[in-house]
Amino acid sequence: MTIQHVAIVGGTHGNEITGLHLVQHWQESPDEVLRNSFATELHIANPQANRIMKRYVDQDLNRQFALEDLNNTALTNYEQSRAKAINHMLGPKEDPRVDFVIDLHTTTANMGLTLVISENSPFLIGMAFYIKSHMPETVLFYEPKERLDDYFLASLGRHNGLLIEVGPTPQGLLRADVYDLTRRATLHALDYIEHTNRGDVLDLPDSYEAFEFVDTIKLPESTDGRRWGMVHPSVQDQDYQPINPGDPLFLTFSGEVIPYSGNATHYLAFVNEAAYYDRNIGVSLMNKITLQRP
Amino acid sequence: MTIQHVAIVGGTHGNEITGLHLVQHWQESPDEVLRNSFATELHIANPQANRIMKRYVDQDLNRQFALEDLNNTALTNYEQSRAKAINHMLGPKEDPRVDFVIDLHTTTANMGLTLVISENSPFLIGMAFYIKSHMPETVLFYEPKERLDDYFLASLGRHNGLLIEVGPTPQGLLRADVYDLTRRATLHALDYIEHTNRGDVLDLPDSYEAFEFVDTIKLPESTDGRRWGMVHPSVQDQDYQPINPGDPLFLTFSGEVIPYSGNATHYLAFVNEAAYYDRNIGVSLMNKITLQRP
Repeated sequence: MTIQHVAIVGGTHGNEITGLHLVQHWQESPDEVLRNSFATELHIANPQANRIMKRYVDQDLNRQFALEDLNNTALTNYEQSRAKAINHMLGPKEDPRVDFVIDLHTTTANMGLTLVISENSPFLIGMAFYIKSHMPETVLFYEPKERLDDYFLASLGRHNGLLIEVGPTPQGLLRADVYDLTRRATLHALDYIEHTNRGDVLDLPDSYEAFEFVDTIKLPESTDGRRWGMVHPSVQDQDYQPINPGDPLFLTFSGEVIPYSGNATHYLAFVNEAAYYDRNIGVSLMNKITLQRP
Repeated sequence: MTIQHVAIVGGTHGNEITGLHLVQHWQESPDEVLRNSFATELHIANPQANRIMKRYVDQDLNRQFALEDLNNTALTNYEQSRAKAINHMLGPKEDPRVDFVIDLHTTTANMGLTLVISENSPFLIGMAFYIKSHMPETVLFYEPKERLDDYFLASLGRHNGLLIEVGPTPQGLLRADVYDLTRRATLHALDYIEHTNRGDVLDLPDSYEAFEFVDTIKLPESTDGRRWGMVHPSVQDQDYQPINPGDPLFLTFSGEVIPYSGNATHYLAFVNEAAYYDRNIGVSLMNKITLQRP
């Protein structure tokens, strides 16, 4: 298996400007993203959302790439149209031109350098392990999906791709630390592809700790959708930390504590993510797992 | 001097939702903002900007309240019109119905609980000192202006008002810690007004350390307005810390350090404030001063 075409995509969400600035910088100074054994291309996914500095114009672009939706000509809003245009550019998804997509995201949550891994393949898990072996602070976020059903942009390539998610950073803002983590993780991913194309034997661990997505919990809201509470201060910024049954989870505007009502210990992620307020989601729950290299 | 009408205003910037949620909460549960000696009223300043979750629709609302602009009927965009409507509601500025305005803001910068003080009056400085005596973490941000020329919404009352600025928080997000600081500072301000109305003698210090606004510095940008660098990591989150001539200030996308080229030590504020990217402003410079109670 050889990788010939790699696409690095920024600005899939218009107000996550770290990836956008990185892609623009590499478009002007491509040297550090060039490798001998494959071609690297650079794309900005949602320029209109970037222009208005919003996550999206009509709908989240990073939910539009399931094959069924790409092939549904009745879906015509801005992001649905962008998805079809990007599918034309990098795909088509059933038999794509591009072998691998790296999609650059940020989060307002305290998730550090998180790699979202949607496929249990030796190639993708190996890439994540390679990055983590060079950047030990990396967190592996495991959420396997069938590539053709996967609605992420990074699923467009021949192999399910890598979503790099770095935080915390406000939306519409560029932090040097977040920029640097995103940049270095991307360059390690390119190095890994170069190594595998050359057939290099890589000395990687057999397993790493990872977190597997379980569910989301909504912020307290009334039946008419009005918020009446927020993430509890003891949970804020505690991404990847455990939450136990009965622990404080939310705090109402009147000062009452709402405990976590689940019946098992889970781990937090996307704690108080601004982008998820459109669906009033307060936190995600994860399981801590041991991810084996297949 | 007696205060009879106090207005608490939230959502002057549509994506600073802490004040907005506080005002909405108090509209439903007003008990904690009621005092015996004056009437408290609650207003949401920029509902249209809040609806689209942006700072403003056409122009920054908190720059529209200079008397000359309020009386200029040629200024008709959304925020210019809102300013006139708010002036009708709380003012008119030349002879206002409302005695005092408290305007609730947030920042993406690491500025903690900051009180912006626009007038060197015993009443306003006393209020700021009263709040700081109860919440020692308070930072006093001194930027005196003539009330009638002042373009802040908080200048609409008979006495130049108080702008409460709390961070860091992303825009469009509600953090319990930021909510709590904003709430408590506002309640102390109301207590102070109650005390002064009653003629209570308050035991306040004669002076406090404060920071006086000097200037802003732009992010590195090309002649066509395109950004080519960001705030240096050693400056990020260092609000109210000193910066000396020659210290690193910005970092270009290519990794070059741009030092601070001023010729005197100043103190940083609004470091990497997302809201100021529309004018490409990177940091504000302040002098550290001793603020005397007049």
